[in-house]
Amino acid sequence: MRAELVMVGTELLLGQIVDTNSATLAARLTQVGVDCYYVSTVGDNWMRMAEVLSHALGRSEVVITSGGLGPTQDDLTREVAAAVMGMPLEERPELWAGIERYFRESGRVAPAANRKQALVPRGGEPIPNPVGTAPGLWLERNGRTLICLPGVPWELERMLDETVIPRLARRAPQGLHSRVLRFVGIGESHLEAALEDLIREQGRVTLAPYAGPGEVKLRLSVRAPSKEEAEGLLTPVVGEILRRVGVYCTSRDDEPLEVVVGRLLRERELTLAVAESCTGGLIGDRLTDVPGSSAYFLGSLVTYSNAAKERELGVPAAVLERHGAVSRETAEAMARGVRERLAADCGLAVTGIAGPGGETPTKPVGLVYVGAAVGEKVVVEEHRFRGERRAVKERSARAALDLLRRSLPGHEGFPPGGVERTGDQV
Amino acid sequence: MRAELVMVGTELLLGQIVDTNSATLAARLTQVGVDCYYVSTVGDNWMRMAEVLSHALGRSEVVITSGGLGPTQDDLTREVAAAVMGMPLEERPELWAGIERYFRESGRVAPAANRKQALVPRGGEPIPNPVGTAPGLWLERNGRTLICLPGVPWELERMLDETVIPRLARRAPQGLHSRVLRFVGIGESHLEAALEDLIREQGRVTLAPYAGPGEVKLRLSVRAPSKEEAEGLLTPVVGEILRRVGVYCTSRDDEPLEVVVGRLLRERELTLAVAESCTGGLIGDRLTDVPGSSAYFLGSLVTYSNAAKERELGVPAAVLERHGAVSRETAEAMARGVRERLAADCGLAVTGIAGPGGETPTKPVGLVYVGAAVGEKVVVEEHRFRGERRAVKERSARAALDLLRRSLPGHEGFPPGGVERTGDQV
Repeated sequence: MRAELVMVGTELLLGQIVDTNSATLAARLTQVGVDCYYVSTVGDNWMRMAEVLSHALGRSEVVITSGGLGPTQDDLTREVAAAVMGMPLEERPELWAGIERYFRESGRVAPAANRKQALVPRGGEPIPNPVGTAPGLWLERNGRTLICLPGVPWELERMLDETVIPRLARRAPQGLHSRVLRFVGIGESHLEAALEDLIREQGRVTLAPYAGPGEVKLRLSVRAPSKEEAEGLLTPVVGEILRRVGVYCTSRDDEPLEVVVGRLLRERELTLAVAESCTGGLIGDRLTDVPGSSAYFLGSLVTYSNAAKERELGVPAAVLERHGAVSRETAEAMARGVRERLAADCGLAVTGIAGPGGETPTKPVGLVYVGAAVGEKVVVEEHRFRGERRAVKERSARAALDLLRRSLPGHEGFPPGGVERTGDQV
Repeated sequence: MRAELVMVGTELLLGQIVDTNSATLAARLTQVGVDCYYVSTVGDNWMRMAEVLSHALGRSEVVITSGGLGPTQDDLTREVAAAVMGMPLEERPELWAGIERYFRESGRVAPAANRKQALVPRGGEPIPNPVGTAPGLWLERNGRTLICLPGVPWELERMLDETVIPRLARRAPQGLHSRVLRFVGIGESHLEAALEDLIREQGRVTLAPYAGPGEVKLRLSVRAPSKEEAEGLLTPVVGEILRRVGVYCTSRDDEPLEVVVGRLLRERELTLAVAESCTGGLIGDRLTDVPGSSAYFLGSLVTYSNAAKERELGVPAAVLERHGAVSRETAEAMARGVRERLAADCGLAVTGIAGPGGETPTKPVGLVYVGAAVGEKVVVEEHRFRGERRAVKERSARAALDLLRRSLPGHEGFPPGGVERTGDQV
């Protein structure tokens, strides 16, 4: 089944917001065996929207739109969908009652502008919206299906999960099953070179490497009627890949480092404290994105000044004076210090120069030290990152989490020692 | 001048990465007066890529592609561009020498696979890539311009800034000048209602409200031959808007809260310490995204457990026992405590239930208290946020920064007191 997406909103064409909905939609469609071949973005303009929608309905069986269902004058999706499908709009009293109720629950009166959200093309169905005012639309005509969803990301996700995906899943023939492996410390073309014969073969299982932010991912895909059969085909290929490059593999299941690290800590019943400087709180933020992280994450100290490093972490003034805040010695002292301070089993520390300012003749922007104190030993690694301030912060956080992963007992990682290989890794 | 974007990469159609490049491209194009009317995404498939590129070149004068310039077998943009434009590929020796040099500088040998990155369609020009291996392409034929850029975000941005945008700017007639105002505490349709006559008028200055994450933005646009003339037209309209709804306006220049707060602290020569619980480090991360934030941000303490709140912040055990970690009293104690602890002028604290677990019969998921200690007073506000864990964290961070903004002396904000109006605000 071929689908395509149409993302509606002039703010997308002006670059003022980033489109995350197409990624959400595409991922969920793929999981239920619906192929998405095109994504188009169009502004809040009647004629261009009509053109893009018609063109899409001409080449794809299923078209899903996001955005343009709001109450303002620029919201045109409902009206253009009705026009393009030839299904005139009619008000549904029960939908308006629902909208009025939604506002009443927060102690407010529904504005008149929201009335148009109760309109549905004749012969079409509304899709319930449990977390917003605008119902979606499910329209079918001449063998085509047009599904219109709100642009608000969590409203779209709920409606996908509760209504849209289950209905589409019942219609799709064979699921595309994917497994995504993540790698840190190896570049994209080096990975491809190591797996060259497997990639070229492309039997039932296809392999595609692609760069993620600071990691390299490998997507394995296979079409099969059931999850079990798909797993049976994927497993031997995964096994061969791990035999060759397993030492760089951080996850066999597309898990971000904070999830992997969280599981390793939980399994070993270890607690963690973090000392951050240039990362500003990003490591703690990532760790706490995992529900239940309070079981192993005790807290972090963001020591943004030298004084704070001394006072909060007990880094000796002599170390700061002699080696500077950005040094192996300070990273080690921070890792030991925070572990002791928060009475944790493990300590993780980062200190570096995120830029654009702050560099010295011997220490460039992007110079970062990460330290992990686990048991008796403290391992410190040096990195030299390229990129802007935000990129340096994100790569530092990732390097720190990866060092912790490799430092935990019983984990088979590659030997520590400054493993930043920029290559063509992004 | 009409432009459109073509984003290349199957990973985009599988939803495995989020496309940020189209937002970057669209924003920069708009600034130099190039209108972007369409964005299309297509996978690493020759025929579909050829179809989308041809269709784009048929309707737009300028087409910019992102992605598909890498060294792997799936990278087809260079080849398809040559085919669609009828400009056969030729190797440029100086480009290959540059690629070899790039690898040599990190102590490596250039893989043979990267050789194709030195190919350029006959009659076309390479676009220098200062931070990666793949040069871009600038091709002109039959009144059409096709610009191909790498998919790696910071490579694309550098090449845009250094080569592409300056060249396009010289060709575009009149710049579209925009000003974006940001609002917190007012819903999108309420904002539109308050400005209804201004929006409907749509003279030379057009107004468009749209929802940002947790904020509402208002985009004012005007076409004018110079920045000065544009400002002259925008200023009176901005003035009228602020007269009506200025109390909710956090920025007249599309600035995120951390930039606004940073400026207010710097102007008043005040320092800040932050105590985070459910936000996990996100507030510190946002504050430190601003270069030079070390001038006012002393650090933060992420106290993820009750023990840490007592020990690190001096929150009295009696308060925790009697009111619980998520309470007005604890938020106040955390704000005072961190200010004293890090010897700052201001303290900011957040405590809440991010979910999905953690709620009690009296305290639901999404219940969050933010506290700001500035001078003698401590203000605490209660919020009840909808959404998943990440959404609650982000909205909490935003509410905290906004409370701080309104609490700083001399700042005209609306009176504190629990200003969460969910409405249709996202």
